[in-house]
Formats: sequence, C-alpha cells, structure tokens
Amino acid sequence: MNVHADPAASLKSALVETAALTEQTLDALLPAPHGLHARVQAAMRYAIFAGGKRLRPFLTVNSAAVFGAPLAQSLRVAAAIEALHTYSLVHDDLPCMDDDDLRRGQPTTHRRFDEATAVLAGDALLTLAFEILAHPDTHPSAEVRCQLIALLARAGGSEGMIGGQMMDIDAPAHTHGAEEIVLLQRMKTGALFEFCCEAGAVLGGGSDEDRARLRGYARDFGLAFQITDDLIDVTSSAEAAGKQVGKDEAQGKATLVSIHGVAGARREAEALAQSAADAAAFYGDKAELLRALPFYLIGRES
Amino acid sequence: MNVHADPAASLKSALVETAALTEQTLDALLPAPHGLHARVQAAMRYAIFAGGKRLRPFLTVNSAAVFGAPLAQSLRVAAAIEALHTYSLVHDDLPCMDDDDLRRGQPTTHRRFDEATAVLAGDALLTLAFEILAHPDTHPSAEVRCQLIALLARAGGSEGMIGGQMMDIDAPAHTHGAEEIVLLQRMKTGALFEFCCEAGAVLGGGSDEDRARLRGYARDFGLAFQITDDLIDVTSSAEAAGKQVGKDEAQGKATLVSIHGVAGARREAEALAQSAADAAAFYGDKAELLRALPFYLIGRES
Repeated sequence: MNVHADPAASLKSALVETAALTEQTLDALLPAPHGLHARVQAAMRYAIFAGGKRLRPFLTVNSAAVFGAPLAQSLRVAAAIEALHTYSLVHDDLPCMDDDDLRRGQPTTHRRFDEATAVLAGDALLTLAFEILAHPDTHPSAEVRCQLIALLARAGGSEGMIGGQMMDIDAPAHTHGAEEIVLLQRMKTGALFEFCCEAGAVLGGGSDEDRARLRGYARDFGLAFQITDDLIDVTSSAEAAGKQVGKDEAQGKATLVSIHGVAGARREAEALAQSAADAAAFYGDKAELLRALPFYLIGRES
Repeated sequence: MNVHADPAASLKSALVETAALTEQTLDALLPAPHGLHARVQAAMRYAIFAGGKRLRPFLTVNSAAVFGAPLAQSLRVAAAIEALHTYSLVHDDLPCMDDDDLRRGQPTTHRRFDEATAVLAGDALLTLAFEILAHPDTHPSAEVRCQLIALLARAGGSEGMIGGQMMDIDAPAHTHGAEEIVLLQRMKTGALFEFCCEAGAVLGGGSDEDRARLRGYARDFGLAFQITDDLIDVTSSAEAAGKQVGKDEAQGKATLVSIHGVAGARREAEALAQSAADAAAFYGDKAELLRALPFYLIGRES
C-alpha cells in the first residue's frame, strides 16, 4: 500500500482493514454463547460487534508496527483494549448513568437485553480484557504481559477512565474551567488512548523515551479528538453527525468550545493535531499512518 | 499458637487475625479519595470496609502457608480476591439485580452513594484486583503473576462467577434440578473459592497435583458452605442469622435443601466437609486450619 499516493484514502482503507482484523480476533477470543448462562455471552458479543471505528485498535496496531512487533500480538492487545472500551460504553449507557437507548442507531445493550445482563456483560468484558493480556500468545515474555496488564489497569481504573467518568457525572458540569475539562478528558478518554500507543512500544521493546513520546502523541491526539467531538455537537446537523447534537448546550455543560468559542476550539484542535503529527514524524515512514490520523479525524463530521 | 488445644477457638482467632491483616493490606492498596473523582474512591472503601468474614483471604493465606509462600505475597493475592469479591457484591446488590438495600445491617453501596457511583466503584474494584496481581510485590516471577491473573480472570469471568450469576437470575429458579444447582453454585461461588486455594499453591510453587488437590478441597468446601447457607435460610431465625431468612422458599427457589430435605442436605454438607478435610489432611499439621475450617463453618448459624 502506498500511503503517500492519497493519504486520506490510504488511511481510510487501513482503518477498515485493521477494524476487520480486530473483529476477527475478538470473534476468536469471545466465548460462544452456551449453557444456562448463554445470555451474558450473547450480550458480550452484541455489545462488541455493534460497529465503531475501532480507533483504539488502530492506534495500538500502528504503534506496535513502528517497533516491528508481530501483528498477531498487537491484535490481541487491540482486542483487549476494545473489550475494555466496550464494557465502559455498556455501563455508561445504563439508565443510572447516561441513560441512552440507542448507540450507533441500534438499541443499547440494556435495551436489547436487560439492565442486569448489561451490567454482567460489561463486567465480563472487563475481566476478559485482562485474561487476553495474561495469555502467552500476547507476548512470549511474562514481564511484558504484566507491564501491559498494570498499564491497562491504571488507565482504566479510578485514577484513569473510571475517575474521569465519575468526575463527569458528579461535579456540576457548568462550573468546570478549561483546566478541569482538560483533566477530565485526559482521564475519561485520554488515559486509554495513551495506553493504546504506549502498549505498542511495550510490545515492540521500545525505550522509555519511545513510550513517553507515544504517550505524548496519544495525549494530544486524544484531546484534539475530544474537541472535535464537542465541535460536531455544536456545529453539525444531527443528520451529518449520525447522532443527537446540541446535547452539551442543552445540559449546560462547559466544553472547550463553550469556553474558547468555535474558532478558538478549532485552532486548538489543529495545534494539538500538529503536535501529535510531529511526535509521530520522529519515526519517519514507519509512522506515516499515525502521523496522518489526527488531521484526518479533526476533519470528520461524525 | 497451639491449634490442637481448642480447635474452634484457634480457628476463630486465626480468622480474626487474617481478616485484620487483609484489611491492613487493602487499606494500603486502595487509593485515598482525592480530587474531583473522590466519590468513586470513597465508595470503593465503603464497600471494602463493610465487614465480612474475609473467608476467601483466609483460604488463600492458609493454602499459601502450606507451601511456605511469604505472608506479604499471599496477603496481596488475598486483597485482590477481596476486591473482586466485593465488586461482585456491589453489583449484585444493584436495583436491576437483587435490589438489596442492606448488607450486614448497613446501607448497600448504591443506597449510601447512588447507583452510578456503585457501578463505577464495582468496576474500579474489579480493575484494581488485576493491578494488584500484576505488581512485582505480589511475586518476583512475572510468570507466576500472569498465571494468577489468568486464573482469576477465568474464575471471575463469564465461565465462572459471572456466568453463575447470569444463570441464577436468568433461568427459572424452580426448574433447577440438583445437578444444575450444583453447577450454578460451582460457577457462582465455587470458582472463586477454587481460585483462592489454587492461588496459594501457585504462589508457593506447588505441583499440578497440589493445585488439583486444593481445587478439590475448595470445591467440596464451597458446596458445603453453600448448603449451610441454604439450611440457615430454612431453619434459622432472622435474629440468629443476622439477615432475612425464608427468602428461597418465598421466591420459589429450588435449593439442595428443598430437593433433599433438611436432614438429607445436612448429611451432604457433612460428607462434603469431611471430603474437604481429608484433602487438607494430606499436608498434615501445615494444613490444620484448612482441615478444621469446613466443620467449623457448617456448624455456624449466620
């Protein structure tokens, strides 16, 4: 594949290809529904195979590729991340959290099954993420596997994703200043993005500098991604976005867009995308897809 | 401590001592509530320090002691198990599951905080369990740590504890025959008991035969424990039991007591306790506490 010919087209086809490979890997790793407990395994599969860009797997696979890690290994880590990410969506959609009936136009897991099954399916996906990482097929070195497990647990735990979600639903949203919003996003979504990229370096035996560089890439990328989400909420039509828009304003929720304005937020997203691209450019052609990704994503409308 | 002088008194004091050490370990491992996400960490601590026999930690610490594993290591594994066990209680108590307002006479986590916080605190405790196991302080060998993580993920996953809970809430309870009840209990509570004991052997470098023997001990012990729970539900007063009794009959729930009758179930619990004690007796004095535990627990009234 010549990634220079038409960068956007190359990136798009690489995203589709990695998504398909990740889904194949997940299909092999998720238990087949069976027995008197089949319902929870059916719900796990329903939640996992509900679509999505599979952006986190893409980050992992392409970060790992920079360091020459085998695809079979990085796809297993990608599957673990997607299992953990999916559990967080299933639980966040619950009536006691965001109370969402639809996700990507389909009934959410608790609407398609029931709340108890959704709670259990989320719990089981979270548990499965660690089971996948602990298996020798993920990496021959148990030291590496333990590092990945410790990093994922930190990223997904009460000082990472869960803490960010708590902050989001607990603190009065309209009182958040720009610094708090950045902290919240860095915990709620940024920590897992950082894990995705750092995991690639860990798998491929990158140095501490490599790990820090990829975390920096992911941090800037993640915030640019989030600002773009907030811009879409303000500027896009529901039809173009494929989801309800204007939610933040209706909920009186402060975002970097409400604080800096549309033009200011867009400039910030562009600066962050540039900073992420610069970090990826350090690795030259091997990181061409990682370099192109931030610009591609801040240009999206949904 | 002379465990032969008064076995029941020795066992009781050993249970209290291990519970205190486990709670010290948990106190050091659970994050201190801080920042805008303090609420989830406060809920994690509320759920963990709500009391309980700390039976699972006792099994782990005493199984590990048979093989001479350092107490500092087995207490970390015990803390991980208790974090995972506690998450399962927090989620099982939710309105969409068992809808319990009280646990051990205190408000359940979602009643003391709120449902969203309880879901997140459970998620964070589950995540923390794996973070604890992955840390080098748990065992110097990363191979051993990965084995523990893989075993705990299996025991707590959709083919273990979560599958058992799904079976319990999904299948019509009154249609369960004795074989299905045994399977359900083995998944819902037995799998974690088996992990507790096997983990001790893994920590201390026991052989495959040791691991199988301790799993067998835990399997028999766990079922004897469960039958005793069901007997208490039928025969005890709420005052003596310290909780609501007669729930199974009110819910039309089949148990080994409803199938075999009180006398038959009691005989089965005694036979299982004897079988577990025989397995522990293989290790002589080193397993005296494990040998005495099943008889002690089937004699309890709460």
